[in-house]
Amino acid sequence: MNAPATTRVTASNADRYLSRQPGQKAGLLPRQDPLRWPGRPDGPLDEAACKRFERDGFLVLPGLFSSAEVARLLDATARLQQDFHGGCDERAVLEPDSGSLRSVFQVQLLHPQLERLFRELRLLDAAQQLLGSEVYLHQTRVNYKPGFRGREFSWHSDFETWHVEDGMPAMRALSCAISLTDNMEQNGPLLLVPGSQRHFIQCAGQTPADHYRQSLRRQEYGVPDPTLITRLVSEGGLRSIIGPAGGVVLFDCNTLHGSNSNISPFARTNIFAVYNSVDNRLREPYCGLPPRPDFIANRSQTDVLREFGPA
Amino acid sequence: MNAPATTRVTASNADRYLSRQPGQKAGLLPRQDPLRWPGRPDGPLDEAACKRFERDGFLVLPGLFSSAEVARLLDATARLQQDFHGGCDERAVLEPDSGSLRSVFQVQLLHPQLERLFRELRLLDAAQQLLGSEVYLHQTRVNYKPGFRGREFSWHSDFETWHVEDGMPAMRALSCAISLTDNMEQNGPLLLVPGSQRHFIQCAGQTPADHYRQSLRRQEYGVPDPTLITRLVSEGGLRSIIGPAGGVVLFDCNTLHGSNSNISPFARTNIFAVYNSVDNRLREPYCGLPPRPDFIANRSQTDVLREFGPA
Repeated sequence: MNAPATTRVTASNADRYLSRQPGQKAGLLPRQDPLRWPGRPDGPLDEAACKRFERDGFLVLPGLFSSAEVARLLDATARLQQDFHGGCDERAVLEPDSGSLRSVFQVQLLHPQLERLFRELRLLDAAQQLLGSEVYLHQTRVNYKPGFRGREFSWHSDFETWHVEDGMPAMRALSCAISLTDNMEQNGPLLLVPGSQRHFIQCAGQTPADHYRQSLRRQEYGVPDPTLITRLVSEGGLRSIIGPAGGVVLFDCNTLHGSNSNISPFARTNIFAVYNSVDNRLREPYCGLPPRPDFIANRSQTDVLREFGPA
Repeated sequence: MNAPATTRVTASNADRYLSRQPGQKAGLLPRQDPLRWPGRPDGPLDEAACKRFERDGFLVLPGLFSSAEVARLLDATARLQQDFHGGCDERAVLEPDSGSLRSVFQVQLLHPQLERLFRELRLLDAAQQLLGSEVYLHQTRVNYKPGFRGREFSWHSDFETWHVEDGMPAMRALSCAISLTDNMEQNGPLLLVPGSQRHFIQCAGQTPADHYRQSLRRQEYGVPDPTLITRLVSEGGLRSIIGPAGGVVLFDCNTLHGSNSNISPFARTNIFAVYNSVDNRLREPYCGLPPRPDFIANRSQTDVLREFGPA
């Protein structure tokens, strides 16, 4: 609806998901990609689980990691917290008010425990099954959401940003969020809008250069119009992802999500891995700006990801 | 623990709850007032309900107001929202970032519907029963917590502020929060710490003049130490007050509470009435500063509150 008449289009770079283009208005476009990609019918997820993913845009897998595994991963994230608390490294993002550590990116390069985690077959096989191909890591991060000071993540579709700012052509990526602490209704759990992955939310406003420096702390561009969010929530509802540490939620790159702040004493620390299909590697950003750095949108290490073999 | 050796003390103004005094350190003092005041054993609350209030520091009364009543009250608060959205009036408090209307104070003077509400026997009789005396209105307000933009209320005991900044001598007041919208786990419901009313949390730091102008938007003084909050939560747990519009929660003036932000599309609009015992009228503030204005700490209209009679 109300898409602008012209945009930079080449044969290899046709933009099927217009957003933040000159004169752009907010609106909804129907998804033009499969909800689940064919090609790999066999995998760890049974048909009912795959159907739920198709219907809702996400899938919750409780207890995928043992408490011993969670403890080791928490140690790894605590180590990163020590190393990156000052925020001097570009990969570290601080909370807008308190200056507490909010996120660390590209963590597969920062700790061997995490490098192994993202090659776990429990994650890798499920991602390949839903994306119908081999995959690589588009982005990884730890979101700490510390107790007392953890701030909101405002509503967004990852794909809108990855498309506009990173040049991801199709909706053929998904996030795995691995909970390292209990996710409770009081500590700002992930909120997902079931069914929202069926709509591409076009956003108004053009992207400023180096937008990511600000947007990782508090986003201002690529923010869906509130009336569209309200519409999708009224259609699909709102789901809080709550459960003990060790659970995983897989969600489509275009599922609308966000989370409230965390004034509780309990940190809500989750590790995110974004798997992208090897058939969906990044192109030039659709906004016409230079690509964002590798730590936030991997272009340099896009070989097929394989299980971490014995040393 | 670690209370300073000296403070302004007179026979009529002895400070049993030291906080924000020179050299003050954070600490816990045992409550020196009854959890439920004797004197009015009869009332609308049965013994089991009174016992729950004593044990937890709060009591939830679902469905106390009908949907027709809720609709009329919502109309009244929407009217105030129109009248006060600019925030030019001192009684209107805006959200720190968005400038949306966060709260309006002294609302019993602003709308006849609200004046009547606070004299409803359903509220008045319960307050009298728990406080063991006749009561008057210490403070009233509407907290809008708008969808998308509603921000946190950080952890606090009301009594700490009312004692230090307003000169309330004893823990003999309570709040009624009347929910006008559904309070859901996703729209920043009230969080209460059961049992916390048994401890007075002494806060460090001295109060600056005119602190209220800032503190109503985002509090910086009278903020309990995080380690003490963690201790009280580990002892008593954390309770989200969730339920359909029309429910009421009564909570002791010293019950530790706060709430997360609200990124959901659904406003969480509650009306608060604070009833104080007529035997607990305000004195000089214990911090030594001039009293805060009447709209936030009523000193001028402290006659016994009676049911709103026929016109």
